Amino acid sequence: MKLIRFGEAGREEPGVILEDGRRIDASGEFLDYDESFFAMGGLDSLAEWVKEGCPDGVEIDPAVRLGPPIARPSKIVCVGQNYLEHALEMGGEIPTEPVLFLKATSAWSGPNDDVLIPRGARKLDYEVELAVIIGKTASYVAEDEAMSHVAGYSVFCDYSERAFQKEHGGQWTKGKSADTFAPMGPALVTREEIADPQELRLWTKVNNEIRQNSWTKDMMFGVRDVVSYISRFMTLLPGDVIITGTPSGVAGGMNPPQYLQAGDHVECGIEQLGELTQRVVASR
Amino acid sequence: MKLIRFGEAGREEPGVILEDGRRIDASGEFLDYDESFFAMGGLDSLAEWVKEGCPDGVEIDPAVRLGPPIARPSKIVCVGQNYLEHALEMGGEIPTEPVLFLKATSAWSGPNDDVLIPRGARKLDYEVELAVIIGKTASYVAEDEAMSHVAGYSVFCDYSERAFQKEHGGQWTKGKSADTFAPMGPALVTREEIADPQELRLWTKVNNEIRQNSWTKDMMFGVRDVVSYISRFMTLLPGDVIITGTPSGVAGGMNPPQYLQAGDHVECGIEQLGELTQRVVASR
Repeated sequence: MKLIRFGEAGREEPGVILEDGRRIDASGEFLDYDESFFAMGGLDSLAEWVKEGCPDGVEIDPAVRLGPPIARPSKIVCVGQNYLEHALEMGGEIPTEPVLFLKATSAWSGPNDDVLIPRGARKLDYEVELAVIIGKTASYVAEDEAMSHVAGYSVFCDYSERAFQKEHGGQWTKGKSADTFAPMGPALVTREEIADPQELRLWTKVNNEIRQNSWTKDMMFGVRDVVSYISRFMTLLPGDVIITGTPSGVAGGMNPPQYLQAGDHVECGIEQLGELTQRVVASR
Repeated sequence: MKLIRFGEAGREEPGVILEDGRRIDASGEFLDYDESFFAMGGLDSLAEWVKEGCPDGVEIDPAVRLGPPIARPSKIVCVGQNYLEHALEMGGEIPTEPVLFLKATSAWSGPNDDVLIPRGARKLDYEVELAVIIGKTASYVAEDEAMSHVAGYSVFCDYSERAFQKEHGGQWTKGKSADTFAPMGPALVTREEIADPQELRLWTKVNNEIRQNSWTKDMMFGVRDVVSYISRFMTLLPGDVIITGTPSGVAGGMNPPQYLQAGDHVECGIEQLGELTQRVVASR
């Protein structure tokens, strides 16, 4: 199943993409794809509704904006330096266990929304990542049970301002949390549709030039491992998002670095999950 | 004005403490003290309702549990190493600008709730902090306008597991985000009641022994400055919480360290704002 949300930013309605590609409005049956939807078995009810042929569901106007496929989560947990080549290009050490940080959820954004360069930014960078959406509360979950807590997957770009991240002291948060720095979409693809989340190609193109081009099998800590690992340190709530790290090829790792500029066109994609297509615009 | 929430965890109702000390149920008039309450001018409506004598408001059963005084926020932004003596006791460098990190909001907890030692924890520590609750969206806010974005203040204990924080690689998030690690209360005291947030005594007692005892004037970066500073890197939403750092005297800074143990009784207080009173209990 493929879940989408559509409409004006902050007022999105839930919908689904059917196997024949039609996009159907599900707002007559479901309020939103949020914490309570996942907690209350919403995915099962949605599957049933789709199986029944989406009664009372009409097609979505193809011109309408797509929002992020789930409501703003309680948290976005990020796994840093999870691809060896990226850890090396950023000059970091090779982690012996997953590196975790949080991204402010106020950065939540849709798959085709503009990316805003924050005021004073000089080093805007992209990071395509496989996003994992939690379906069921996860606390102290063993690795062999981790996958049952996953609702599905999506494409995420962990936009990062490297000067904010590394040249202002302290932790990485400052460079990860500006508005529009957390686009996800175009859809939440439910778990059963993806045979193996470690066998997906993922890429970034900037102005049609390939910058990142890798495979999720290159993750040092896979989806199963990071869900279990994170759940030792904090409780993952239904609708929470984990982003699983980015492969090499970021702007900051190039020589010389080629940071994003206003007017640039960024595409981040993952096989079977779709693509983000965004324009970089100057700060407001 | 003093806002409180009362009732079972996760199902709290809003209330107020009147000047004569009576605690009044406001749930007939207000849904909750959440993002939309603050965004829609809820504080003004509440003040009006109180001024009218709280029509239809009944007294709250004194035996009922107090929850955190606002709903789980979209984020908890933490300012690290903001008191010189604490930065030194933790062996850190003296920051030249505020150090920021985020705490998982799933740690949200009430002022008298038990503190749970996470599984595998060995170094549980306390950090009393002045909490600042945002009343109005703050993005690129100048210092001289920062205070108008503040709804009020509360007492917060930034519970931290030092081994999780510093001995598992990467960022501090792992040691800051376990369930019950973010108690706040007992009330949100609105801004106009506090003449100067930099002139408040704050303390921690463990089993009645004073461990932390300091003044908010010892902050290197005051409330005004941190609200403005944070708003350069992320948008603060109504109902978001900033915790402004802890003074010296934490368990990890003692020689030898005296970390919290099951059965310990922790009190964190701030002048004019009240006190958290909590018991430490073993992991589940």
